[in-house]
Amino acid sequence: MRTSIATVSLSGGLVEKLHACAAAGFDGVEIMDADLTAAPESPEEIRALCDRLGLTIEMFQPLRDIEGVDDETFADNLRRAEAKFEIMNRLGTKRVLVCSNAGTATIDDDDVAARQLAELADRAAVHGIHIAYEALAWGRFVDDYRHAWRIVERADHPNLGICLDSFHILSRGHDPAGIEQIDGEKILFLQLADAPALDMDVLSWSRHHRVFPGEGDFALADFLGHVLRANYRGPLSLEVFNDTFRQTDPGRTAAHARRSLTWLADRTAAQSGWDTLRLADPQPARGIDFVEIAGAGLDEVDEMLGQLGFRFRGRHQRKPVRLWSRGEARIILNEQPRDAGARLAAIGLQVDDADAAMSRAVALGAPAVFRRTYAGEHELRAVAAPDGTQVYWSDRNGGPSWVDEFEGGTDAGDDADVIDHINLGYRWQEFDEAILFAASVMSLETESAAEVPGPTGLVRSQVMRTPDGVVRMPINLAPPTAPLPDRHIAIRCGDVVAVARKARDAGLELLRIPNNYYDDLSARFGLDAETVGELRELGLLYDRDAHGDFVHFYTRTIGTVFIEFLERRGAYEGYGATNAAVRLATQTTHRS
Amino acid sequence: MRTSIATVSLSGGLVEKLHACAAAGFDGVEIMDADLTAAPESPEEIRALCDRLGLTIEMFQPLRDIEGVDDETFADNLRRAEAKFEIMNRLGTKRVLVCSNAGTATIDDDDVAARQLAELADRAAVHGIHIAYEALAWGRFVDDYRHAWRIVERADHPNLGICLDSFHILSRGHDPAGIEQIDGEKILFLQLADAPALDMDVLSWSRHHRVFPGEGDFALADFLGHVLRANYRGPLSLEVFNDTFRQTDPGRTAAHARRSLTWLADRTAAQSGWDTLRLADPQPARGIDFVEIAGAGLDEVDEMLGQLGFRFRGRHQRKPVRLWSRGEARIILNEQPRDAGARLAAIGLQVDDADAAMSRAVALGAPAVFRRTYAGEHELRAVAAPDGTQVYWSDRNGGPSWVDEFEGGTDAGDDADVIDHINLGYRWQEFDEAILFAASVMSLETESAAEVPGPTGLVRSQVMRTPDGVVRMPINLAPPTAPLPDRHIAIRCGDVVAVARKARDAGLELLRIPNNYYDDLSARFGLDAETVGELRELGLLYDRDAHGDFVHFYTRTIGTVFIEFLERRGAYEGYGATNAAVRLATQTTHRS
Repeated sequence: MRTSIATVSLSGGLVEKLHACAAAGFDGVEIMDADLTAAPESPEEIRALCDRLGLTIEMFQPLRDIEGVDDETFADNLRRAEAKFEIMNRLGTKRVLVCSNAGTATIDDDDVAARQLAELADRAAVHGIHIAYEALAWGRFVDDYRHAWRIVERADHPNLGICLDSFHILSRGHDPAGIEQIDGEKILFLQLADAPALDMDVLSWSRHHRVFPGEGDFALADFLGHVLRANYRGPLSLEVFNDTFRQTDPGRTAAHARRSLTWLADRTAAQSGWDTLRLADPQPARGIDFVEIAGAGLDEVDEMLGQLGFRFRGRHQRKPVRLWSRGEARIILNEQPRDAGARLAAIGLQVDDADAAMSRAVALGAPAVFRRTYAGEHELRAVAAPDGTQVYWSDRNGGPSWVDEFEGGTDAGDDADVIDHINLGYRWQEFDEAILFAASVMSLETESAAEVPGPTGLVRSQVMRTPDGVVRMPINLAPPTAPLPDRHIAIRCGDVVAVARKARDAGLELLRIPNNYYDDLSARFGLDAETVGELRELGLLYDRDAHGDFVHFYTRTIGTVFIEFLERRGAYEGYGATNAAVRLATQTTHRS
Repeated sequence: MRTSIATVSLSGGLVEKLHACAAAGFDGVEIMDADLTAAPESPEEIRALCDRLGLTIEMFQPLRDIEGVDDETFADNLRRAEAKFEIMNRLGTKRVLVCSNAGTATIDDDDVAARQLAELADRAAVHGIHIAYEALAWGRFVDDYRHAWRIVERADHPNLGICLDSFHILSRGHDPAGIEQIDGEKILFLQLADAPALDMDVLSWSRHHRVFPGEGDFALADFLGHVLRANYRGPLSLEVFNDTFRQTDPGRTAAHARRSLTWLADRTAAQSGWDTLRLADPQPARGIDFVEIAGAGLDEVDEMLGQLGFRFRGRHQRKPVRLWSRGEARIILNEQPRDAGARLAAIGLQVDDADAAMSRAVALGAPAVFRRTYAGEHELRAVAAPDGTQVYWSDRNGGPSWVDEFEGGTDAGDDADVIDHINLGYRWQEFDEAILFAASVMSLETESAAEVPGPTGLVRSQVMRTPDGVVRMPINLAPPTAPLPDRHIAIRCGDVVAVARKARDAGLELLRIPNNYYDDLSARFGLDAETVGELRELGLLYDRDAHGDFVHFYTRTIGTVFIEFLERRGAYEGYGATNAAVRLATQTTHRS
């Protein structure tokens, strides 16, 4: 599989973009005309840089508004094209994208379009250049790939073929199955982009809201299957116009982009029953092994965990690491004296095959994490997520547990608690990257999404989870001007009232919930006075859906981490989104 | 005119919002239920605070999903409502918004709805509370204000009336003329919001994209005219759900909101021929008096202006201020030793009646700017825009000019240059505020908008101008993660090639335009080699539209300001947006 990306998908200057593409492992690039125009480097310099970086310039893009015009206009179009062919010669690239005319076309006649494209191809042939003709979704007379293909067939020129772009095809709802009717030799290029289902004009949708494969609502594995069955053997190239990716760090975005292609190929191969392009099998987590809090001065966290009824399981034999547990919920404290305060630093997942999970993650471009290990210690399989959070895998039915490396603590006790969910806060611009990582590397699926109004703006929350709910990971996004949301670990227990009462008696101060909240609770749910009184006394929050009830509480934040305890009564499936609004307001009040 | 605003329109906690509303001069507020629920203060405390701040709690909002339900559900709805009436008693507010049922309604029968609303009104009457029933645009059975009014008429209860919301009416395209058929006594409340014309589902449109009056595409002056002709005499209240205003500083947003209401009232009165509510007449600028650059160490700017052929007109008699001019283009340098580097600090406009402009601006809530003046000096009429930029007005045919206060310079010379446009950079979240200020206080109109791709993201550019083009002010917005765009002054001259050549000979380094740009220019426009050669030699940029040609150049940036010189040949009307992309890329390269 050869991979490529259009330079317009990234921020920065052209040289910066090319370095980012190479570092991310792309084989080639499509160079956007405007990127070259704005670059201080000559085409020869860009060519030499690509050579050195091992990047093929797969395509120059685009020529616009060429065909379907009167003779005089067409003569000027040929002149424009010739000038660009000269630049392509200097760049050393032999393929150019020609978009169907969206601006100046006046003649709706396939014969005219075919004749003009053939004439353009004649000129291109002199330079050894091939024309890849693409139907824009908003083309004046040609807006369907099947129509573009009919024109290319009619022109019947060895230097003319078509370019397929998933956005232009799927945004219009055109059936991609017809791709298999096209001669694979004549599919000169393939551009891939996903997009969320939006009800808006297709031009704005295309220019602002494209995302990388797997991040939108298009059936791209299905699409790519058709293209490969048509015997297309060229590169898979990403062309993603997106307002966010235009401003995020190009190195990070390129890595994110590259991951999306690997994952798409894997899903396509799996769907079509092909062995090539396959990664190791996905390893959805069977359980949460641990969550790690790292930072300096974690004594406060020790104290809080003790008050919450966690059992101290000991210190690590050779590292400044401590273990606490309640039932199956294990929290590791990793003292890092040079760090800032407590932060949620790592997540451990139990899977059927940790080696497969690791191999898959590395193939998906996740950097392996190395920690000092000692002879006899459990070997770690771990990678870093794009934001630096570490993800560890262990075999569910593995050998001796890493827990045995801790000494001097008590036993596990008999609580049945588990980690219900891990809530991760991200910057607004990290959304697609975080979702793609969770889906591809962690094999999680998207569940519900919510928008929670907070005092510093709307917080967008997207839950990622295993289908069985063993791992649930709400991803919370800060509004652009607001600080990063705190992260938290939510423990599911059998009797949250008892935990809260014991914690309070042990001196733990929970997040102080406003009295007005309880008045509203009475009004909304018609709870009896005694129940509301108990909730109010302990600072518990309450929610209800059609399937059951939800009672929970939050601790105050230490560093950027806090703990939630919750009890799901019946089959309540949510996360108390309404209460999250009250929590955000209260946390902001207490911070300022 | 009584004014009010819904707390949901602002960021922050409830107390912070109330302080912001009072400081902005609102008479009252609508308190959103969720804002109270999340507040640590009791309803009694909120009531007392509003009393002290002079704010009336005009309405509590909202009760949802009340009517059109079976008896059992309705009994529970009454219980919910009673609980909220208790809270309203504690808050001391006597009006509650009831939205048409969008969730639980099962009975599409006006008799049932009328009977249930009347029963709710019976309960409300016990507390002296009035019910304002509003048709939501996405109500299940009631989504049109005329339908809501028929139900209210049918219920015929003294404690029941309707609430009109411009968004719910105009988003659905319902004719607001029918409002005049409603008994004004029964219009219990009026909510105002504008919105851009967007092709999307009405719920998302309403929840995320409302803006303050004058910032969207609704004909709100027309709408308000109908409401006032129906004899509505209650407050004008803003209810603006907007993702941006949810995160911007509440004090600044409240001032911005308050301005929008004053302006709306003025336009409504003007349109309807009413004298009340009128401000002083708009004073569109007849010319640009000056632009001021302030900051420390402006010697570099002096040198650059000299190289650009500006004439030094002298130093101010008593202030550390210097004046340069070329024809009618006057630039003031205001040395501020404690400031950072050069910034575009003030704009002076010539109007027919400067007193009227100032009076209008102050009525629109713009803070007056006071500078030290001395006996005999020209008195200044100036206000500060929300971002701190100062706007001065002088009479076009006024008395002795302030220019006479400068000494020791040369004469004005005979150049015919003028300031073509002033380009202001803002943060992305300042867009609506900046547009509203320019439109209401500066009497500018919106012209073309463009999106310019830069290396740190798309820059959105909205031109504000007088109809005759004497003042043109493109407003450029930074992408959220990018630095604030530099500002610039564009001078229109008769021979930009000559200016560039002289400047170069005088040693001025212009912004270095990439060679590739000129190759692209040849390709795009088919310019002859000699023309392109001259452009390339001097670092000039070129554009063309159907009406004429455009040649221009940029200086490098000093502090956050640079200068553009341009020549409009024929009737070219644009600003060279394509070239702006090249400029952004080049400026970024030279900065880093």
